[in-house]
Amino acid sequence: MSDLDTLAGGAAAGTLYGIGVGPGDVRYLTLRAAGLVRAVDVLAYVAKAGAPGNARRIVAPLVAPGRDERRFEYPVTDEVPADSADYQQQIASFYRDMAAALADLLRGGRSVGLLAEGDPFFYGSFMHMWRRLATDFPVEVVPGVTGMSGCWTRANLPITWGNDTLAVLPGTLPETALVERLRLTDAAVIMKVGRNLAKVRRAVEAAGLLSRAIYVERGTMQDERILPLADCAAADGPYFAMVLIAGEGRRL
Amino acid sequence: MSDLDTLAGGAAAGTLYGIGVGPGDVRYLTLRAAGLVRAVDVLAYVAKAGAPGNARRIVAPLVAPGRDERRFEYPVTDEVPADSADYQQQIASFYRDMAAALADLLRGGRSVGLLAEGDPFFYGSFMHMWRRLATDFPVEVVPGVTGMSGCWTRANLPITWGNDTLAVLPGTLPETALVERLRLTDAAVIMKVGRNLAKVRRAVEAAGLLSRAIYVERGTMQDERILPLADCAAADGPYFAMVLIAGEGRRL
Repeated sequence: MSDLDTLAGGAAAGTLYGIGVGPGDVRYLTLRAAGLVRAVDVLAYVAKAGAPGNARRIVAPLVAPGRDERRFEYPVTDEVPADSADYQQQIASFYRDMAAALADLLRGGRSVGLLAEGDPFFYGSFMHMWRRLATDFPVEVVPGVTGMSGCWTRANLPITWGNDTLAVLPGTLPETALVERLRLTDAAVIMKVGRNLAKVRRAVEAAGLLSRAIYVERGTMQDERILPLADCAAADGPYFAMVLIAGEGRRL
Repeated sequence: MSDLDTLAGGAAAGTLYGIGVGPGDVRYLTLRAAGLVRAVDVLAYVAKAGAPGNARRIVAPLVAPGRDERRFEYPVTDEVPADSADYQQQIASFYRDMAAALADLLRGGRSVGLLAEGDPFFYGSFMHMWRRLATDFPVEVVPGVTGMSGCWTRANLPITWGNDTLAVLPGTLPETALVERLRLTDAAVIMKVGRNLAKVRRAVEAAGLLSRAIYVERGTMQDERILPLADCAAADGPYFAMVLIAGEGRRL
């Protein structure tokens, strides 16, 4: 029987690791992810200005004092709408500078672990580094438990049965598009609910699914909140909110 | 800094654990899952007749000799179509007997870990035990990395960007339904390709997505096979095959 640390393995020089840290509970890191968090020369992560960084907070129990860490802070964009050309340009410039800083470390032979919430290739900002660096440096991506898996687990809600179809939809979609997609699926996960909560609720109701919809805020984190969407009167929620609608496929 | 084994935690008497074991590589078990595989009194799993059981094979490096294990063998159904009433009845009877056997162990105070490939609440056969036992016994479900996350990671394919929508579709859907759903999504995962491979390929082509579609067989397992769907001439593939179509959302 192998020791967990032995199974997890080490980090190679000059390699970029995209480390999926899962939905929020440190126990939901994979063995490989936990091993790399401890093994890489440099631990890198992105955070909002003034915040600890969600991915960094998740792995805190695995990080010894004095580790070499690089914190990359998103440009403050409160005054700029997220879909404006100005914002897009600021964030692209931020990612360009970040990629250059990581490339410097990798060229110097350091192994760099970039933390990614959930799964790195599923809506992950890691992807913006991957597309800039993967042609020039060795990269290993470590898949993670997605935020949505964490949420349906904590909501005690098996999400898809038998031959159910599942639609993953951003709450940013126009209301009519949300209704159309919801009508054509058995199960659904609506992500990025945040400021779109009132619209999402109207769309779910219009699709005839309100009685089955569950609202989950910060799933698997300490301050998680789970309730029927029908009981959720607020007009908006936090960024880490999603709505889950389980399929009703074959029960055997 | 905590030890991985300490973080993983132990098992409680008389409790059923649904342990997501991830897509195939033992390093992709979560800390909690790996800890429970070693801590539970009884390790239970389902397997096809004559096969080692895929979930059991994945966790093999974590299982010491002499552990108390319960293997539940699916009824042999080769001569019965999977959508026939006869098959449904056989499988329901199998799940009923299996739930009774697990209930006996739990009533006797044993902790029981039931292995689930991928994530237990995402198309997992664990759900059939959960709905029979969760009202009578304490249950903890441990989310896992899904098979599809393992596949898009190994295919080196970031699956969803920005506000992409994702459709998860079983290959068992009729061809016209597949085409309709594929036309209405940015990214797609088609699961249970197996015997439906030729139909799935026609549907992907009809939806204008053949040039973007990647075929993945047994992702993260030793004999994985990854190629463009366009180069995949076979009429059918193994059960663990899926087709991935990545979204083309906002690159920053």
